[in-house]
Amino acid sequence: MSAPVPSDKPLRLGIAGLGTVGIGVVKIVQRHADMLAARAGRPVQITAISARDRTKNRDADLSNYAWESDPVALAMRDDVDVLVEVMGGHEGAAKDATEAALRAGKDVVTANKALLAHHGQALAELAEDLNRAIRFEAAVAGGIPVIKVLTEGLAGNAMRRVMGVMNGTCNYILTRMEEAGLPYDTVFEEARQLGYLEADPNLDVGGIDAGHKLAILAAIAFGTQVSFDNVVLEGIGRISIDDIRRAGDLGYKIKLLGVAQMTGRGLEQRMTPCLVPSSSPLGQLTGGTNMVVLEGDAVGQIVLRGAGAGEGPTASAVMGDVMDLARGLRLPTFGQPAGSLMQATPAVTSVPAPYYLRLQLADKPGALAKVATILGESGVSISRLRQYGHADTSAPVLIVTHKTTRDAIDHALAALPATRVVEGEPVAIRIEEL
Amino acid sequence: MSAPVPSDKPLRLGIAGLGTVGIGVVKIVQRHADMLAARAGRPVQITAISARDRTKNRDADLSNYAWESDPVALAMRDDVDVLVEVMGGHEGAAKDATEAALRAGKDVVTANKALLAHHGQALAELAEDLNRAIRFEAAVAGGIPVIKVLTEGLAGNAMRRVMGVMNGTCNYILTRMEEAGLPYDTVFEEARQLGYLEADPNLDVGGIDAGHKLAILAAIAFGTQVSFDNVVLEGIGRISIDDIRRAGDLGYKIKLLGVAQMTGRGLEQRMTPCLVPSSSPLGQLTGGTNMVVLEGDAVGQIVLRGAGAGEGPTASAVMGDVMDLARGLRLPTFGQPAGSLMQATPAVTSVPAPYYLRLQLADKPGALAKVATILGESGVSISRLRQYGHADTSAPVLIVTHKTTRDAIDHALAALPATRVVEGEPVAIRIEEL
Repeated sequence: MSAPVPSDKPLRLGIAGLGTVGIGVVKIVQRHADMLAARAGRPVQITAISARDRTKNRDADLSNYAWESDPVALAMRDDVDVLVEVMGGHEGAAKDATEAALRAGKDVVTANKALLAHHGQALAELAEDLNRAIRFEAAVAGGIPVIKVLTEGLAGNAMRRVMGVMNGTCNYILTRMEEAGLPYDTVFEEARQLGYLEADPNLDVGGIDAGHKLAILAAIAFGTQVSFDNVVLEGIGRISIDDIRRAGDLGYKIKLLGVAQMTGRGLEQRMTPCLVPSSSPLGQLTGGTNMVVLEGDAVGQIVLRGAGAGEGPTASAVMGDVMDLARGLRLPTFGQPAGSLMQATPAVTSVPAPYYLRLQLADKPGALAKVATILGESGVSISRLRQYGHADTSAPVLIVTHKTTRDAIDHALAALPATRVVEGEPVAIRIEEL
Repeated sequence: MSAPVPSDKPLRLGIAGLGTVGIGVVKIVQRHADMLAARAGRPVQITAISARDRTKNRDADLSNYAWESDPVALAMRDDVDVLVEVMGGHEGAAKDATEAALRAGKDVVTANKALLAHHGQALAELAEDLNRAIRFEAAVAGGIPVIKVLTEGLAGNAMRRVMGVMNGTCNYILTRMEEAGLPYDTVFEEARQLGYLEADPNLDVGGIDAGHKLAILAAIAFGTQVSFDNVVLEGIGRISIDDIRRAGDLGYKIKLLGVAQMTGRGLEQRMTPCLVPSSSPLGQLTGGTNMVVLEGDAVGQIVLRGAGAGEGPTASAVMGDVMDLARGLRLPTFGQPAGSLMQATPAVTSVPAPYYLRLQLADKPGALAKVATILGESGVSISRLRQYGHADTSAPVLIVTHKTTRDAIDHALAALPATRVVEGEPVAIRIEEL
């Protein structure tokens, strides 16, 4: 075998966190001991575990593993080579255990997107100083090995754009709204009762969780320091069933879509509701499935689709990292030395795109002309317009614009009230071109 | 940086073959020297090249590279660390150069699916004996990094099934037949004139090229010795525009689909036309794009989509391998030691599936009853049946069966002629469930 590093010594894991993901990892290591050893050229074992509550029934035989009540103590054990951090949270125990592991000469495999989004650069520098590895495939898009594809498989490409639907709960809510014709609040409540939402639901529906993932992808794609604070975040709470239906009529779906792109002005990162063509792979994505779209200058467009969460898929991603370490495959945290990662200039949305506009137009002579004039003066030209029948004193008007800038749209939105023919607040949603 | 192997010494490539792919690699190395060096932690350079015709204009500046007219001589040069074999062909120069490179202590990156399908096991053993690496991401599904995803990203999974549409020309022909309503022969001729077909078109339309790729994926997925001879091959030459239309009416598309699956009877590998649901990712694939579906016991289903051929995508795959070697990431050829790969028992199609049947039924009383009786006696039960109107003495009948075995279908097909109510040859196509 040509791999230079692995010995036949076992790789010994210490697992911090015995929730869904941790138990999923335990099950794979137990079920597939022979297969993992054949593939890695050495055994992969669990030696120690740690969780908050030792007495909880966990549907797995943990009796052969040493128990630590303190994850930091687990991380520093002599019989642990790799800390598998699957506790979550970006401060406190997860961060402490990760740092302790690196300092004690161990590698770290983590599923913790928040930790990396907030402390990725510092942790990458620490790992590099100590000559240790941090791996985090499970932090982004669940079972989809997107970190590996981007960092390694596409390493010959200058990346142009990275996109993704990476929060299954949001996609579930939007799909359910569409299919059942239910308003956001009702479906949100359903999702809460089904246990689909984080304790702080804003992590999901506010786009924060997906934003963490986008910031990590952007760092790798563009060789920049991870910068979650510069992700433009807009959740799905303001998406109405009306817009879902209207967008559908026009041939689009509404998705909480992350887009990262390097432009002449700097790095754009946004996690916002967007329209995508119903016939596109992103448009056809329903329920909790995730999808990532990677665009490189040589490869063109690569689309990856798979389960974004759940015991098996997330544990599969953790084990991908574990197996790399067992096989001696080691890389800098974000694919290149931490010191070579640039601090990107954050840029607001400058890449032109078509926009979807919905406004409620008063039934007055010349009303539409006034709107058209404002749009024209703002530099927004109309590609398609649809006015709906009405029995009321006003009617919904849908507009798909030609490609224009967010600035032009904002200018138009600011100027519309003065016409006194637009009722309520107009809705404007970017149409991301695929 | 934590990678243990790379030095700051350049990784020096010798490129054998200056067709589309070779020139694509040259362009990436020239265009992205800084980016590649930053990511690999060391420069990536081309030192020598080789091709049949030195004088041909190749749209790239090759003046800084040493020229070898013999690829074997190129492979053995002292200033070459990695042979990039992009000539093609499974005997002769490609094989000789690959073996010479390994024996001279060089690693090999190849795009040559035929070479690996025919000599994969022997080459893997040779590489292992000599402690060298053979990498072949570009051999399967063009720009899609499926070898990496399967070998590394999903290394924690026992794979259940691997599927793929991996010959863009066949998918182009089938899509074009459907969209233009043209018969196979006409579209085949179009494709030939557009230069989409290999010199021996049977490599494409006979499923051989795609079968090579499937055999490689199966070896990695199931830890078996690559065994192209045991791939059941059926090309697209017998697909009629009629079946494409009828399948469409029933909600299916016809694809040349590769499926590899380990069953109780052994390893099934087939590259045959199949029906897939029109609404599935595979069903929505049009034109030359490739798609691979990987199913693992932990991860569930992962779908990968991208360009299956072309300068940029294929060169991107080659460079992914080159960058792995530059970064010191090394693995056994098929992901585990060559000696541990089992010789799989080849199995014919035993996994039950629904089937699509089309037959031309004589307009006689009791004709349908006779067919239904034969099907029932063969153990084939009918899920949906559609009889079309007709002005003739016979009418087309379409049947979608419940899940059944290929044996049962063959039994029914053999028994139908004796009824004397079926005209011509009935068509039976497997419906692969996704």
